Amino acid sequence: MYNPAHFTETDRAEIERLFHACPLAALVAQTGDGLDANHLPLLREGEGFVGHVARANPVHALLPDGAPVLAIFRAGDAYVSPNWYPSKAETHKAVPTWNYQVVHVHGTIHWSHADKDKRRAVALLTARHEKETNGDAAWKMGDAPADFLAGLLDQIVAFRIAVTRVEAKSKLNQNRSAADIGGVAQALESRGNQTVAQAMRRATKG
Amino acid sequence: MYNPAHFTETDRAEIERLFHACPLAALVAQTGDGLDANHLPLLREGEGFVGHVARANPVHALLPDGAPVLAIFRAGDAYVSPNWYPSKAETHKAVPTWNYQVVHVHGTIHWSHADKDKRRAVALLTARHEKETNGDAAWKMGDAPADFLAGLLDQIVAFRIAVTRVEAKSKLNQNRSAADIGGVAQALESRGNQTVAQAMRRATKG
Repeated sequence: MYNPAHFTETDRAEIERLFHACPLAALVAQTGDGLDANHLPLLREGEGFVGHVARANPVHALLPDGAPVLAIFRAGDAYVSPNWYPSKAETHKAVPTWNYQVVHVHGTIHWSHADKDKRRAVALLTARHEKETNGDAAWKMGDAPADFLAGLLDQIVAFRIAVTRVEAKSKLNQNRSAADIGGVAQALESRGNQTVAQAMRRATKG
Repeated sequence: MYNPAHFTETDRAEIERLFHACPLAALVAQTGDGLDANHLPLLREGEGFVGHVARANPVHALLPDGAPVLAIFRAGDAYVSPNWYPSKAETHKAVPTWNYQVVHVHGTIHWSHADKDKRRAVALLTARHEKETNGDAAWKMGDAPADFLAGLLDQIVAFRIAVTRVEAKSKLNQNRSAADIGGVAQALESRGNQTVAQAMRRATKG
């Protein structure tokens, strides 16, 4: 990814926040059938990630254990109009751009058909998202009939991603003045894009 | 992409709507340096797409003209709790899932360093997004000083993508009853995820 220094995200806390805020990753790989991508919720675990795919998904057969993958975690994005830069009125030296935050995780994929790994991947993902969504009313795997659950677990394959490299980019007008950044953040807020506006304010504080 | 029949998006109008609604594509390719992705606004033109990259972006040197690329256009997404299915209270046969819409465009990339192609790519993208953003107050390339603009155009490379295959997926609980779909759409609406809720309602009408 083209990632000039002024847009490179180096804040580890911000990168972990993005993994958490945007869990549905695009898991990309080069297979014998060409470029492939699947959209899967990934859970951070230690320095890696865990997840699962449908057993009917050919990806676990197309990609041998240890094959290179790229997991893309992307947050909000926004078109940025030159009209929103206060400096534009003076210099007219402004063109449109696009703001966004993204983390690219390069790594290798490792599959497991073991029941314990599949139960664990599902349980961890469920626990995290149910807690955030329903708090004390969280759904638990034990709420489903055991035979129904066993049937579903039979239809998935678990995986973990061992990370080789993380590249993060916060493209948030850091190459403009504080006044221009403020103007864009305000315009995005007034248009309901709080995600990018807040990311811009976080980046400015840093 | 794993794309079972009940989730395969076949509605051409919906696919074109997604290209328009989510213009910031992840442009993925296998390069000599490994898997690469850049996040670029793409503009539909005829059966293909146009865009541009920074000349400082090594991708236009790493990918020879005609190299295969995958452009991923993704709309909103949402965790779906089993608690939101009315049928769960009766059968308990439900587990969490994730809803989303995505279009994968497989094609080949074709670069251009010609001034007219670069101006055209920028002008088309600008015209579209300024019209949507600012209507009659749209910024135009002519608003910037000519020498400033020439300097910027010198720093980009234009490209077009010739499409070989389009795969679209609307994963919106179509494998559940109308009551369950309604329950999920209502829960997402109450949590402010109008994008996915509205997509679910569109898919149900289809």
